[in-house]
Amino acid sequence: MTAGAEAGPPGVGDSEDVGPGVGMGAGEAMPHGLFGLTTALVAIPSVSHVEGPIADAVETALRLCPWLAVERVGDNVVARTDLGRRQRLLLAGHLDTVPPVGGNEEPRIVGETLYGVGSADMKGGLAVFLHLAGTVPEPAFDVTWCFYVGEEVAQEFNGLRHLWEHRPDLLEADAAILGEPTGGVVEAGCQGTLRVRISLAGSRAHTARPHTGRNAIHRLAPLLTAVAGYRGRRPVLGGCEYVEQLQVVEVSGGVSGNVVPDEASVLVNHRFAPDRTSAEAEASLRELLGPSLDPGDRWELTDAAAGAPPSLDHPVLAALVAATGTAPVAKQGWTDASSLWAHGVPAANFGPGDPLVAHTPDEHVSVGELERAAAVLETLLRVGG
Amino acid sequence: MTAGAEAGPPGVGDSEDVGPGVGMGAGEAMPHGLFGLTTALVAIPSVSHVEGPIADAVETALRLCPWLAVERVGDNVVARTDLGRRQRLLLAGHLDTVPPVGGNEEPRIVGETLYGVGSADMKGGLAVFLHLAGTVPEPAFDVTWCFYVGEEVAQEFNGLRHLWEHRPDLLEADAAILGEPTGGVVEAGCQGTLRVRISLAGSRAHTARPHTGRNAIHRLAPLLTAVAGYRGRRPVLGGCEYVEQLQVVEVSGGVSGNVVPDEASVLVNHRFAPDRTSAEAEASLRELLGPSLDPGDRWELTDAAAGAPPSLDHPVLAALVAATGTAPVAKQGWTDASSLWAHGVPAANFGPGDPLVAHTPDEHVSVGELERAAAVLETLLRVGG
Repeated sequence: MTAGAEAGPPGVGDSEDVGPGVGMGAGEAMPHGLFGLTTALVAIPSVSHVEGPIADAVETALRLCPWLAVERVGDNVVARTDLGRRQRLLLAGHLDTVPPVGGNEEPRIVGETLYGVGSADMKGGLAVFLHLAGTVPEPAFDVTWCFYVGEEVAQEFNGLRHLWEHRPDLLEADAAILGEPTGGVVEAGCQGTLRVRISLAGSRAHTARPHTGRNAIHRLAPLLTAVAGYRGRRPVLGGCEYVEQLQVVEVSGGVSGNVVPDEASVLVNHRFAPDRTSAEAEASLRELLGPSLDPGDRWELTDAAAGAPPSLDHPVLAALVAATGTAPVAKQGWTDASSLWAHGVPAANFGPGDPLVAHTPDEHVSVGELERAAAVLETLLRVGG
Repeated sequence: MTAGAEAGPPGVGDSEDVGPGVGMGAGEAMPHGLFGLTTALVAIPSVSHVEGPIADAVETALRLCPWLAVERVGDNVVARTDLGRRQRLLLAGHLDTVPPVGGNEEPRIVGETLYGVGSADMKGGLAVFLHLAGTVPEPAFDVTWCFYVGEEVAQEFNGLRHLWEHRPDLLEADAAILGEPTGGVVEAGCQGTLRVRISLAGSRAHTARPHTGRNAIHRLAPLLTAVAGYRGRRPVLGGCEYVEQLQVVEVSGGVSGNVVPDEASVLVNHRFAPDRTSAEAEASLRELLGPSLDPGDRWELTDAAAGAPPSLDHPVLAALVAATGTAPVAKQGWTDASSLWAHGVPAANFGPGDPLVAHTPDEHVSVGELERAAAVLETLLRVGG
């Protein structure tokens, strides 16, 4: 998934019992191949800010491949071929996970499915990348494998952002693929996201004499009605339908049990299609919510990140879509496709695992998902775009 | 004002600058008479839970009057005449104040006005009571003077409640007057108050895919609309119009910036006229708000206290009204008139000072207010009902 902003919904899916399963205790046999590699990566804890051990493991593995130039920048690891190909493809994935939830810190295998925090988001994708880095020494493009830190937390910790700032040479590419879980289909570009905190003013009074004041919480009624009634645009860009959204994610207000409150605030999160800038998206919100606001109220844009257009007309990304054999869809959330696009690199999201189980106690990835994703990317790397 | 529930609106009135004034520093001359007595009481800090020093002062003063039997129960002080009169009048006032606000802990005199925390609520009333206790040795009724603790905090600390529990003999009376600030008019009985916490349920989802969940904050829209549109009953009881109120005093909800929240809650405060029981008042709320609730939502009555009817047909209270020369009004807030009525004692509120300045940085009482209130009560005590 994506930085801080995108930390997924804890609790979704916790009702699904996955049975006893097989814990990966000391001395137990690890499965072989790609599934075993994924299990080994899940067994290395790498909650955001503590990516050192997994970076060590990834760096060590990549240094076994003589066709790769490996650089480590902090706990970010970048490995590049230098075959003089006409085009360079960047394949990037984040090393960090959200904190374990519901006791899923240990990898656990049930049949052909691996459970555990990060299994889908995105150690499955990292395993596919490492597997291909180690087995496709002469891809049709030059390839940059980028393993980076701090994607699940605030932007300031994002390793890709640090690399753009300090080592942009390492990220130069004609196109990019983010290995986020997409269920094996291409999720094109990404929507933008912004948050606005709206504080409505009132004036205090005793609740037995409310006419001497003005209840700021009561003033939320028309505002919430407007947000709840919002119907987003659904622009189709490059064949993909982006669905704009507007949700109140926080509400607060109140002074004490007998006081008419003089302030109430909401935080709204707006997801907007990549045909709009952040400023345009904010302006549309002001138009929608303005009628519920008075001059004394406050409107504060707390964060905004633009989206990325689908860019599926790029030959490398078009070849990726062709290799999946499945129609692409729009990425409704926000991903680092945005920061890649901001640096001129068209990017798509593609990786094993169901995005809906990310950040849930039920997080998992299956052998079949891993193998299908690896096969698609291997075809792309061997055949080219 | 009244217990916990009624802690007034901090901040109301803070815009009014009271000028430099005269601080009551060591060695400065204290004004004489009733005004001086009030100033001396304001100079003794007595924030709730620390009423010992002011109780010592009050007890000492009352013990100077040989016609009074004085008892101390904790930091509550009760002084009674025993003249064998046909009727007994209870005059009760709380010793505690809310915490100082805006630097008003020291008494400060500007012209004929005394500023400081507790000046209106209700050391002005206490001073009037002490003055009359000491100067009217043979009132037309037997009189019980009751100075009690813990009225500005939660009911469990209320001294009157403790006395009802442990020494009900000390509170026996035919009628009662609470010396709360009423601007010199009789405020009859009191309204009831209840609070309900309503929690609406939803289900979590990523804000980029809100259709997979249900936004509990959005569900507040119709509920807040119903509360904001509420028009209370205005029953006229004993010639006094009680105006029922309904206010949201707290709202909260939210999980994180990208999660559709699965819960949102409001705390509502309902003020209801004394012709309804708490249960009847709660039922009327359920009728109003029921259409906004679903079976999975929660409805929790957090506190409820009945009101007290005006009782102005009681001869003693009727005589009080006559002595003011002013039409009585309904008490819209809740006061200990409620607990007195629950024990069979009809009660009214009457005292010097503007109730709207209570609990504000601007709290004050004037010489004129004190003297007018004292004159009314002296007439009542000397002439009888």
